[in-house]
Amino acid sequence: MNIPITSFPRIIIIGGGFAGIALAKKLSKQEVQVVLLDKNNYHNFQPLLYQVSTGGLEPDSIAYPIRKVLKDFPNFHFRLADVTEVDTKSNTVITDIGNLKFDYLVVASGSKTNYFGNTDVEKYSMAMKTIPQSLNLRSLILENFEDALLTSDLNERNALMNFVIVGGGPTGVELAGALAEIKKGILPKDYPDLDTRSVQINVIQSSDCILKGMSAKASQKAEDFLEKLGVHVWKNIRVTNYDGKTVTTNTDLTFEAATVVWAAGVKGAIIKGLDAKEFVTRGNRLLVNEFNQVKGYTHIFAIGDIACVENNDFPNGLPMMAQPAIQQGKQLGNNMLLLIEGKPMKPFVYKDKGAMATIGRNKAVVDLPKFKFQGAFAWYVWMFVHLFFLIGFRNRMVVFINWVYNYVRFDREARLIIRPFKKKRKV
Amino acid sequence: MNIPITSFPRIIIIGGGFAGIALAKKLSKQEVQVVLLDKNNYHNFQPLLYQVSTGGLEPDSIAYPIRKVLKDFPNFHFRLADVTEVDTKSNTVITDIGNLKFDYLVVASGSKTNYFGNTDVEKYSMAMKTIPQSLNLRSLILENFEDALLTSDLNERNALMNFVIVGGGPTGVELAGALAEIKKGILPKDYPDLDTRSVQINVIQSSDCILKGMSAKASQKAEDFLEKLGVHVWKNIRVTNYDGKTVTTNTDLTFEAATVVWAAGVKGAIIKGLDAKEFVTRGNRLLVNEFNQVKGYTHIFAIGDIACVENNDFPNGLPMMAQPAIQQGKQLGNNMLLLIEGKPMKPFVYKDKGAMATIGRNKAVVDLPKFKFQGAFAWYVWMFVHLFFLIGFRNRMVVFINWVYNYVRFDREARLIIRPFKKKRKV
Repeated sequence: MNIPITSFPRIIIIGGGFAGIALAKKLSKQEVQVVLLDKNNYHNFQPLLYQVSTGGLEPDSIAYPIRKVLKDFPNFHFRLADVTEVDTKSNTVITDIGNLKFDYLVVASGSKTNYFGNTDVEKYSMAMKTIPQSLNLRSLILENFEDALLTSDLNERNALMNFVIVGGGPTGVELAGALAEIKKGILPKDYPDLDTRSVQINVIQSSDCILKGMSAKASQKAEDFLEKLGVHVWKNIRVTNYDGKTVTTNTDLTFEAATVVWAAGVKGAIIKGLDAKEFVTRGNRLLVNEFNQVKGYTHIFAIGDIACVENNDFPNGLPMMAQPAIQQGKQLGNNMLLLIEGKPMKPFVYKDKGAMATIGRNKAVVDLPKFKFQGAFAWYVWMFVHLFFLIGFRNRMVVFINWVYNYVRFDREARLIIRPFKKKRKV
Repeated sequence: MNIPITSFPRIIIIGGGFAGIALAKKLSKQEVQVVLLDKNNYHNFQPLLYQVSTGGLEPDSIAYPIRKVLKDFPNFHFRLADVTEVDTKSNTVITDIGNLKFDYLVVASGSKTNYFGNTDVEKYSMAMKTIPQSLNLRSLILENFEDALLTSDLNERNALMNFVIVGGGPTGVELAGALAEIKKGILPKDYPDLDTRSVQINVIQSSDCILKGMSAKASQKAEDFLEKLGVHVWKNIRVTNYDGKTVTTNTDLTFEAATVVWAAGVKGAIIKGLDAKEFVTRGNRLLVNEFNQVKGYTHIFAIGDIACVENNDFPNGLPMMAQPAIQQGKQLGNNMLLLIEGKPMKPFVYKDKGAMATIGRNKAVVDLPKFKFQGAFAWYVWMFVHLFFLIGFRNRMVVFINWVYNYVRFDREARLIIRPFKKKRKV
């Protein structure tokens, strides 16, 4: 990997997501060598991926070059690498570009889509965890409308215009709302020779409410907003399969749909060598103590989605969202410096800053620790917070311009099939 | 294709480039049915593709949904289709989504990269005629730097940082200038552990000057600008082959390079059925008369890059650029309405509005019919003209913001490997 050997302790961070970047920033200008490994050369702002899928934003405006984050940090090395294994005996990380020894290891590998072992669903449904996946979904949605124009078979046409979103968490809810706005504002103009009123948007939730992690009020209001936008919300229904044509459920209900988005769950992206039963816990996450140390190790840490911090308020671990990841990254940065100096570390305490989701224009729900509100003001708060957490002035400007434009013009201009997905899949 | 049959004459336009879109706009709100066919659902602003390849602009900001251009036009139908053949006997267009009869046909299929029959070059070099190609080049450039970091073999490292651009036309010159600015402004910060001074940028031109279509002054100044930026300009040298490792030429000169961009020529994208020897002329273009009618037909037209309009000032046909395409599209729109009404058509007269190319910040060359100038003012003119011809307010805003940002910060933030190219090619 061509990483120089220095007198500083070497910290390897696996993953440049919210957790990894927050940690890296804390370690800048310290007497440590940091090697950050990621499969991508960019940090990707996952909360806005659904806007990429629905043509509201360019992918480039929610991604930020990792090298640019690190550019003023001495003793930092980024490598574009896929970590395949961690050898805890020799303290070595094994990757597709070679092996590297570490003094300290921080696993911030994030999470991936959880298909719960259903290979059909994995094969035929769309996920929305990465930028290429989001772009594939964007292509598929648009390709399906182009195909709907061509067929004279009513069932086929309806299936091409039927969207099934499995999972009523923030991702599913935000995507459904965006699709509903496309149905209303864009499709009738773009496809005058198609009866776009027959477009169906379905959200299927296995439990009795959507946005489960939020307040009852937020959940109810989000459902109201979705229904006002014409989205069908199905509760207490579990999807059992999707064979590329038909979605089956644990009830008599089935859906004929050409587009199924699987937003029903994520699981930790466990790395070989750190997959021992004693610390892989619920959701495929690494059980860590209050210092984010993986059980049994003092020099191996986990932060972000992959880490399950024991916390009485969250018996299933902290939510797999940006806030816990950022807070853990920052705290671990401070702790590692204490550890290296031989001082006692400080336990991680999660500060719940709340949660929010947007359903459509002037329609969002916000749960802050002290206030809960819904509607237009919530929507402004949602936009402000998301702009604030985006990395980079240019990204913020471009996203802001797009949002203003989309709001004023009821438009989403990035509805471009730049890399066709459907044809590729057929081959 | 599900196109309704009406009492209006049906005009099929093949291609939504500058020519096809200009024609479509002229035909809007007329008593004709227009079917526009394109392989992509977007119009793509080709003059700025090199900025996509070099991370200066998002691909989405130089593309515009074709359906959005047509949305207020009655009797317009867009279909995402690949035209495979034209049957001139039955007046039918044959495509991958079915066949369609026409009363009038306009071929605006544009041009594609001309490898002059060299399959090695076609296989190993990069082209920059489409958005996916430009994104592939962006990925490859960045992947090569990531790889350069990893190797200890000096020859390999130098090859990974050696860029060979074949062709000193506007595409080659603008790309070379952009790469030179990346070398200077971005690489030293992004790759502190790489000696980026050894990055080489070579432009190889077969004739004795670059920007051949422009004035001698512009050509000379462009060369000066390139050399000031550290680009090597090789003249009177013809590339004979590239096997993925070594570029060979008709002299002793060879280049070991991992990135070769082929910008040495384009040829008309001829369609089967319209490939008869009597009207396919130099550069694989369709010979048309002063009304843009393909020789031997009164109801089949060609406009834009694919059309070779006989013109004494341009014995090889008009330049394959946006201006002739737009002017032909507009003129043909007026002529078709005259033809349908049984009135005499007016001959096409090309108004040469000049040419321009940008080399870098404050470095451009502009040839207007009455004035020729170079330098900072030329650069502002270049930017203004390109913003003006971009379709769509949002695109203009986003491009403008990016340019201001890149100018002020000496930056190009879209340096993201969103879809790796190299790994894919290896498979």
